[in-house]
Amino acid sequence: MFVAVDAMGGDFAPDMVVQGAVEAVTEFGISVILVGDEARLKGILGQKRIKDRILTAHSEQVIEMDEPPLKAVRKKQRASIRVAFDLVRDGKAQAVVSAGNSGATVAAGMLILGKLRGVDRPAIAGVFPRDRGPAVLIDVGANVDCRPSHLFQFGIMAKAFASSCLGIEDPRIGLLNIGEEGTKGNEQVRQARELFEKSKLNFIGNVEGRGIFEGDVQIIVCDGFVGNVVLKLSEGMAETVKRTLQGDLRSSFVGRVASALAKKPLASFEDKLDYEIYGGAPLLGINGVSVICHGDSSPRAIKNAIKLASEYANKRLVEKMSAELERLIS
Amino acid sequence: MFVAVDAMGGDFAPDMVVQGAVEAVTEFGISVILVGDEARLKGILGQKRIKDRILTAHSEQVIEMDEPPLKAVRKKQRASIRVAFDLVRDGKAQAVVSAGNSGATVAAGMLILGKLRGVDRPAIAGVFPRDRGPAVLIDVGANVDCRPSHLFQFGIMAKAFASSCLGIEDPRIGLLNIGEEGTKGNEQVRQARELFEKSKLNFIGNVEGRGIFEGDVQIIVCDGFVGNVVLKLSEGMAETVKRTLQGDLRSSFVGRVASALAKKPLASFEDKLDYEIYGGAPLLGINGVSVICHGDSSPRAIKNAIKLASEYANKRLVEKMSAELERLIS
Repeated sequence: MFVAVDAMGGDFAPDMVVQGAVEAVTEFGISVILVGDEARLKGILGQKRIKDRILTAHSEQVIEMDEPPLKAVRKKQRASIRVAFDLVRDGKAQAVVSAGNSGATVAAGMLILGKLRGVDRPAIAGVFPRDRGPAVLIDVGANVDCRPSHLFQFGIMAKAFASSCLGIEDPRIGLLNIGEEGTKGNEQVRQARELFEKSKLNFIGNVEGRGIFEGDVQIIVCDGFVGNVVLKLSEGMAETVKRTLQGDLRSSFVGRVASALAKKPLASFEDKLDYEIYGGAPLLGINGVSVICHGDSSPRAIKNAIKLASEYANKRLVEKMSAELERLIS
Repeated sequence: MFVAVDAMGGDFAPDMVVQGAVEAVTEFGISVILVGDEARLKGILGQKRIKDRILTAHSEQVIEMDEPPLKAVRKKQRASIRVAFDLVRDGKAQAVVSAGNSGATVAAGMLILGKLRGVDRPAIAGVFPRDRGPAVLIDVGANVDCRPSHLFQFGIMAKAFASSCLGIEDPRIGLLNIGEEGTKGNEQVRQARELFEKSKLNFIGNVEGRGIFEGDVQIIVCDGFVGNVVLKLSEGMAETVKRTLQGDLRSSFVGRVASALAKKPLASFEDKLDYEIYGGAPLLGINGVSVICHGDSSPRAIKNAIKLASEYANKRLVEKMSAELERLIS
C-alpha cells in the first residue's frame, strides 16, 4: 500500500511536505510516493532516502494556491496533484494527501477518479478533537453554495466515514442552524431538515454553534462556507487559548512555578486543543481516498495526514461509503 | 435616564431578569423600568425595591421564544417587548434591554422606533472580548439572508458603534470569508467586497475564521446565519476550555496545588474568555438604543447588558450612527 503525496502543494512545499512524509515512513512504516519535481525531491531527500518505502513520481507542473481550481486542473495536465490521483487511478497508490490548493484537489479527484453513485458534490469532512470523542463537520470548504439535497448527501457520507473510520457505530447527525426550532434558519436548512427527518439516519435535529463542542452529536452538517469559517475559527481559538494561558502563567513567578508543577495536567489540557493530530480532512464522495491539509501544514500535520489516509484506505472507506449511499439513497 | 427592561423575556424570566436589574441599579446607580406583569414583578421585587430607581410598567402579554417574531409582534400589541419600545418612543426611557425572542425584539424595534435613514436591515453586533481589545462581529442573527448592500450597511453601522462606544477611532473592517483572495467565497461576499473597496471605510479585505481572534481587525462583517454560528461557537468553546482546564488541573494533587498557587494568572486567563462581561449585543440601525441578551442569560449578563445600554445612550450612539450613515451613503 502506497500513499501518493503531492510534494509540491502547500505554502512550505516541497521541504516541509517531504519532511512530514519521511517522518510518516520512519515512525509508522507507511510507504509513500512523493509526486513533484524529481530532481528537487531527490535533493531534499538526500541521505534520508529510505529505499522501497519512499518512491518518487515526476511531475513538471504545480497548481499555485491562488489559481482558479477547475481551470488550473484542466490546463495543467502534468500538475503534481493530477499525477498523484493518476497513481491511484492506475492502482499504484491507494490514497492521496495534499496541502496544496484544496479546490484543485477536489476538482482533480472528481475528474480523475470520478464521483461515487448518489453523490452530486464531494465534500470535505473536518474532524474535531473533543473531550468526549471526535465530531465530524461536513462540508468545511468544498462547496460554498449548497442545495438541500447536497446537505443530505453530506450527512450520509459523513455517517459512512464515522462508522467505518472513527468507530462510531450509529452516529448522531445534526444540522448546523441558528436555533433549535424547525422554523429557524434559512430556506436551504429548513428543506434539508425535512430530507433528514424522512430518512433512516439517526437525525437529532438542529445544532447551534455551541453544540459543536458541547452537544451529544457526532456529525454536524452545514454548507462549505459556514463549515470553513467554523473550522478555522476553532483552530484559531485553540491556538489563541494555548498562547494566552502560557503568557498568563509565565507573567508571574508563582505562575511559572505552577506551570512546572502542573506540567502533566497542562499538557493534557493542551493536547485536547491539538488540531494537528488529525492532520488533514478527508475528501468524501470521490471514488478513492484523499486527505486535504491546510496550506501552512507543519511536517507533523503532514505526517498525521499520511497516517490517516493510509488507515482510511485500509478500512475500505470508499467501499463502505458506496454501500451506505446505495442503502440510503433510493 | 431610564433603561426599559423586558422583564418577561428569556428562559428564566422574570426572576433572573429582575435580579440582574436590581444588581445594575445597586452596583451602577442606573435607573430602570421593569416591563411586565406588575403584580408578579412587585412580588419578586418585594423588599428589594429601590424607590425611584426601579419603576415598573404593566404589560399583559408575552412573546414566547418559539413564536414567529413578526406575526407575534403584530398580534400582541401589549407584549412586554412592545411596551418597552413604547417607553423609548414616548421619551420615558432611553434604551431597551431584552433576553426574550430576539427576532421579536428586532421586529418591535423597527416597528415602533423605525429604521435610521440609509439602513435597509437593522443588525445585531456581537462584541468579542480579545487579548488585544474587543472585536465587533455583525450580523449575529437578525438577518439570515443578506444582499451585498446589507453587508455594506452593517459595516458602516459597526464603524459608528465601535468609534462612539468602544473608543476605536478608525476601526479596521474585514469581510468574513473562506480565503483571503478576492476571488474566494460566494457571490454575495464577492459583491460586498467591491462596495467596501469603493468606500471611504478602512477596509482591509477578507478575514478568515481564524482571523477573528488573531488578526489585526476590529470589525468583521458577515450575514446573520454565519455570525450567529460563530458567536455561539466561540462562547461554547470558551466555556468548554474553562471547564476542561479546571478538570485537568483538579484531576491530580500537583494540579490542585498549582491551581492554588497560580490563582491570579489563571483568573486572568479565564477573564479573557468571559463573554458575560459584554452581557448582550446591541441592535444597530433602529432609531433608538437596544441591547439583546441570550435567552439563558444569568443575572450578571443582564446586569452588564443594562450597564452597556445606558452607556450607549449616554454616548449618543444613535445620533452618531445617523451622522455616519449620512456621510458614507450618498
